[in-house]
Amino acid sequence: MAYDGVETPHGKVDRMLGGAATYIGLAASYFAPVKIVAVVGDDFAPEDVDLLAAKGIGLEGLERVPGKTFFWAGKYSPDMNDRETLRTDLNVFADFQPKLPESYRAAPYLLLGNIQPALQHSVREQMNGLHLAGGDTMNYWIRDYRAELLETLRDWDFLLINDSEARMLSGEYNLRRAAAAILHMGPRVLVVKRGEYGAILFTGDRHFIAPGYLLEDVFDPTGAGDCFAGGFIGYLAERGVNPRAAAVDLQEWRRAVIYGSVMGSFCCEQFGVDRFRTLTRDEVEKRYREFKACTDF
Amino acid sequence: MAYDGVETPHGKVDRMLGGAATYIGLAASYFAPVKIVAVVGDDFAPEDVDLLAAKGIGLEGLERVPGKTFFWAGKYSPDMNDRETLRTDLNVFADFQPKLPESYRAAPYLLLGNIQPALQHSVREQMNGLHLAGGDTMNYWIRDYRAELLETLRDWDFLLINDSEARMLSGEYNLRRAAAAILHMGPRVLVVKRGEYGAILFTGDRHFIAPGYLLEDVFDPTGAGDCFAGGFIGYLAERGVNPRAAAVDLQEWRRAVIYGSVMGSFCCEQFGVDRFRTLTRDEVEKRYREFKACTDF
Repeated sequence: MAYDGVETPHGKVDRMLGGAATYIGLAASYFAPVKIVAVVGDDFAPEDVDLLAAKGIGLEGLERVPGKTFFWAGKYSPDMNDRETLRTDLNVFADFQPKLPESYRAAPYLLLGNIQPALQHSVREQMNGLHLAGGDTMNYWIRDYRAELLETLRDWDFLLINDSEARMLSGEYNLRRAAAAILHMGPRVLVVKRGEYGAILFTGDRHFIAPGYLLEDVFDPTGAGDCFAGGFIGYLAERGVNPRAAAVDLQEWRRAVIYGSVMGSFCCEQFGVDRFRTLTRDEVEKRYREFKACTDF
Repeated sequence: MAYDGVETPHGKVDRMLGGAATYIGLAASYFAPVKIVAVVGDDFAPEDVDLLAAKGIGLEGLERVPGKTFFWAGKYSPDMNDRETLRTDLNVFADFQPKLPESYRAAPYLLLGNIQPALQHSVREQMNGLHLAGGDTMNYWIRDYRAELLETLRDWDFLLINDSEARMLSGEYNLRRAAAAILHMGPRVLVVKRGEYGAILFTGDRHFIAPGYLLEDVFDPTGAGDCFAGGFIGYLAERGVNPRAAAVDLQEWRRAVIYGSVMGSFCCEQFGVDRFRTLTRDEVEKRYREFKACTDF
């Protein structure tokens, strides 16, 4: 969990609630009960806790320690397809060792946000009744922590990364070849996120191409990838998908990708987490139906 | 019609058959009878004429004049998403004034390749029984021939352009806003091509998002956009779509976009027009079904 400073062509916010756990948790909370494991400093605002609590998000695993909350600042390019990082202050996050409360350990669904692979691995090891586990990673871990990352990935059911990360991880430019290589690293499901262009789901030798939702206004793309992850795992949890017990209907993975895209698209409509202050499940369902209407032929 | 020199990460060809009319004609020939209007020099090879004739393409409107055929050379970036033009020799194309043979004038379908808007307009004016007319343009005409282009577009039923051209033509970055502006310029149908990411069809206040087909190997993207146009108009012609006589089922436009994507995807599988030497309609139908299988949810 973090505070972010963000500048887009639509405006500038010096400090607002952010972080992968925040976005993933908010998006997933529309589908299933969520519990967060994260660390914040003593500057973390009560109203930010209140927002998460109001969505029913469990915060027993939210560690508060003396010091400042992780801070990131970035500025988007005029077309918002690129961003420049202006500042990264790890603060209390530097010494974070996630410890799951006892009440979390039997949860059936685990989404590991983008942190050091060894920490992701340690969280995975603390769980004892998983139906489904997976997560995200990034270029930094792929390049500089490769062995640790590969060791971690071996136990995951799914991996969610963007196209350039998939290329870096696999060493293949072509996405079909990249996916084939990654599916040999452990995960049986790979989702390659392509920003505004949507996502591709790879399952064995099949794939599903989901276009991005065409927004009328994109105010701030920060958190969209994490909201995708939240919608994806949230839908699978709501449906009780459990590949350890029974073969999963491919359509369920596909629908999870669409719900991920839906949640990512809402995220971009306002700055930071603001869209989730008012978003309803009815609006989520309406956009899912719009997705269907816009892609049917 | 042209000769192209192309270098991609997969190889280099110094001189091969190319040009918008060639690619559009070849792709459309899988769906409906095609007649080409174009100019070539006296260097135009008999075997290139033979390839077109073997596909049943009418060449009465192929003008041969003393001099050399238009020549273009370019080099693609390692990821093949960008290309640099190395040479453009207009040659006999510089004085081209397209004149339709009498036998062409009553054809019901017209696809105008990317040439000077006034020439496109003059071709349109020579037709006398159109069901459907439209075409392509590019940044150069949008920037430096804007008034002439706007005058030309007014009579078109559809416009096929890529995303950066749509932004330049409309002055809007957001594609939904760009499309709304362009649909006020004349065409009732706009197709925005997005390269490997597919295409978006805008019809009134509805849109259809088609993802790109995920190729295992992309050898040479040259001509893919023109093959998209050929598949698009070819399918509409095969189906006898005629908005002047009756409202068009939206699904027909959508299927035309998918057939366009199918033809564009085949084009990339080999250098230049080579894929069309062996491609069959059965393969086209198989890929259409794959598109459906890869996008259904």
